[in-house]
Amino acid sequence: ASSSGRYAASAAAATDNGTAKPFTAHYFQQELDHFTFTPNASRLFSHKYLLNDTFWRRKPAAGPLFVYTGNEGDIEWFTTNTGFMFDIAPEFGALLVFIEHRFYGESKPFGNDSYKSADTLGYLTSTQALADFAVLITSLKQNLSAVDAPVVVFGGSYGGMLASWFRLKYPHVAMGALASSAPILQFDDITPWSSFYDAVSQDFKSESLNCFSVIKAVWDVLDYRGSNDSGLLELSKTFRACKTVRFPSSLSNWLWTAFTYTAMVDYPTPANFMMNLPAYPVKEMCKIIDSFPVGADVVEKAFTAASLYYNYTGDQKCFEMEGGDDPHGLSGWGWQACTEMVMPMTVSNESMFPPSGFSYEEKSEGCFASYEVRPRMNWITTEYGGHKIDKVLKRFGSNIIFSNGMRDPWSRGGVLKNISSSIIALVTEKGKHEVAENMQGPKYSELTNA
Amino acid sequence: ASSSGRYAASAAAATDNGTAKPFTAHYFQQELDHFTFTPNASRLFSHKYLLNDTFWRRKPAAGPLFVYTGNEGDIEWFTTNTGFMFDIAPEFGALLVFIEHRFYGESKPFGNDSYKSADTLGYLTSTQALADFAVLITSLKQNLSAVDAPVVVFGGSYGGMLASWFRLKYPHVAMGALASSAPILQFDDITPWSSFYDAVSQDFKSESLNCFSVIKAVWDVLDYRGSNDSGLLELSKTFRACKTVRFPSSLSNWLWTAFTYTAMVDYPTPANFMMNLPAYPVKEMCKIIDSFPVGADVVEKAFTAASLYYNYTGDQKCFEMEGGDDPHGLSGWGWQACTEMVMPMTVSNESMFPPSGFSYEEKSEGCFASYEVRPRMNWITTEYGGHKIDKVLKRFGSNIIFSNGMRDPWSRGGVLKNISSSIIALVTEKGKHEVAENMQGPKYSELTNA
Repeated sequence: ASSSGRYAASAAAATDNGTAKPFTAHYFQQELDHFTFTPNASRLFSHKYLLNDTFWRRKPAAGPLFVYTGNEGDIEWFTTNTGFMFDIAPEFGALLVFIEHRFYGESKPFGNDSYKSADTLGYLTSTQALADFAVLITSLKQNLSAVDAPVVVFGGSYGGMLASWFRLKYPHVAMGALASSAPILQFDDITPWSSFYDAVSQDFKSESLNCFSVIKAVWDVLDYRGSNDSGLLELSKTFRACKTVRFPSSLSNWLWTAFTYTAMVDYPTPANFMMNLPAYPVKEMCKIIDSFPVGADVVEKAFTAASLYYNYTGDQKCFEMEGGDDPHGLSGWGWQACTEMVMPMTVSNESMFPPSGFSYEEKSEGCFASYEVRPRMNWITTEYGGHKIDKVLKRFGSNIIFSNGMRDPWSRGGVLKNISSSIIALVTEKGKHEVAENMQGPKYSELTNA
Repeated sequence: ASSSGRYAASAAAATDNGTAKPFTAHYFQQELDHFTFTPNASRLFSHKYLLNDTFWRRKPAAGPLFVYTGNEGDIEWFTTNTGFMFDIAPEFGALLVFIEHRFYGESKPFGNDSYKSADTLGYLTSTQALADFAVLITSLKQNLSAVDAPVVVFGGSYGGMLASWFRLKYPHVAMGALASSAPILQFDDITPWSSFYDAVSQDFKSESLNCFSVIKAVWDVLDYRGSNDSGLLELSKTFRACKTVRFPSSLSNWLWTAFTYTAMVDYPTPANFMMNLPAYPVKEMCKIIDSFPVGADVVEKAFTAASLYYNYTGDQKCFEMEGGDDPHGLSGWGWQACTEMVMPMTVSNESMFPPSGFSYEEKSEGCFASYEVRPRMNWITTEYGGHKIDKVLKRFGSNIIFSNGMRDPWSRGGVLKNISSSIIALVTEKGKHEVAENMQGPKYSELTNA
């Protein structure tokens, strides 16, 4: 109660004096490759970052830098979905810095050719991104004559992973990190492979057993009905597809995405992070399913529930089932998942989705087919650690907060227990993906004031 | 006394059962570039490492791995000059692992073409080397069914820097590090730029003021006499040069190298690390200088003293002054000093050498002329830290011993004070370069027994 009061007060202070100053965009000349000196390595690219000094204290000494370690998307998207940093910036007199991740947004080293092939995309790695942050922050502080200002990094999801890894690899640059919904243990065999989709299933099951059962049943029905052309035509109409789909799997994937992402962003407030959604969207999806008469078509039920994810506002006339770009610029993640970010996942018989296994060989073949690159399966834990993380970091490292919402399926791969007196886990039972980041500032405060 | 007794006992035990088993050489298939996925990156090269399991305990659990993080030279050279690890291996039941540094010895990714240009040499960086170690150690432990065995890294000089940086960057791979004579603070403006050559000068001055003065005087004399052809001819004879030199600076450099390196390896025992030298070689050099009659030629004095470094055994008929490869395979260091390892050094008026300054611009131009590459002047402290290291590591990191000998000029850029209860500095007032590493095992023990 008191913390939301404080947020409300600070948010109000920001808006009382007219609006808080907007962010200003800047471009840093960043080296392409920090870890070699091959001729290409020193090629420079424009690395975008945003600054907001509304709350930055300059006297008697420069206040801290709160740095958002950008992840897989346009950096603006993250500024509009990260409230916590804004909420506490006034109290700490902090300069807000949002740094875009290389190869996303405007920070593409080869412009429109950046995703052409492994020759260009090859430079998209987490290690290069962390070094980008280190170089940029160091240079920025020098240019702002704030060399002694403390730096705290914040991040959510992949960005949360980057924030925690950044504190561990660059303790001389950042003195602390808030890593929100950071599944740094979702590698190798540290976390049971089925736990992600078991968690999604549990989110739905806990709302309604019927809801869970309907979704569990729909996959076989889709495969059966979609096994011939007239079936596909019929299903495409049911799904209001913009074009008749060629494969039933396109419809399954559409449903799969909706249910999975909704479980990730099952916030207690309306939000517009991945998509425009009402409060408690999983509950709302299950209400939709439960509101159908008992004999109603399971495909109709599942489609209607899933369309809450894609079309809550009701302005979509039809749905793009096959092809189409990711609206948040996420296409680089496919590459990242095929190089470093190999997070093995299986689907158990008990889950809501069609059971499946994970094969390193298949993964490797698939990646080679898509990108002409093969993953380095164990690189992440070799480079950053993860195995026995409690033992390793018990007497090493400090000042990292790992926050997770337990309804977020990514939490299963996160750090959920305190490691030491200064590497701590904040767990909210009913929390969601990137919850610590995603208190949406003024909106959230308005709700708590109501 | 008790520790040397223990060393003696362990060394004797090793030799009592017949000789300790020799090292076995192995080759690991190492990726060329750990930090990108460009087509070249996954190219494999043969990475050499040596194993000695004479003392390795297997039951009830695998004993620790003592890993030497190889530096700029053939790995065998370091095995013959690193006694401490051998001395304590029996007590800990340790497996000895000596890993060669990429681009040195047999670990050349492009074979004989490795040093051709920045296209190949570009992959010679400390960050790649540390990742090499992490990947190799992780794989080795798996192959030896010793996944839970603790790992401690050891290194001297640049290898000591690597050992300490390895513990900081890969705490999940190594649980501790002994960093011997590791000048990790000889970057940017952390350490006064004149301190290295002031320390060399102090070593000589503390032996004999006359000795110091003679050396201080020789440089101008060489320049003056070497300013014409007949002078150069005369000097070349005095210096027993294999060929008449073209520049007096070749002779100055020859002297400079002798005095500087001798200060680094001024051990209390005979040694054959850089060169074959007697005990207390600085004292011996000064004795030589002091033993000349007062009016004797200063060039003669300086030459004779310096030739102790190159020709203590007396079997050199002449000296190669211009050209010639470094006998320890050190040529890669020129490249490293022109890319990452920029350690600014000046020579003060008070020192023993001709005064000189340091200019970042000149450094950059010189490197571009030599290698077509420009240094990243502040990269090392951005990547590894160094500024305010006591503050940064006070509550971060653990289990690092920084050892330095104060007669070693490199000690001035080392960590000389404890940082925390588990990041400690061992300083020996009369110690030399890599002293903790360089107790030469049996030889040292023999001397202490005598």
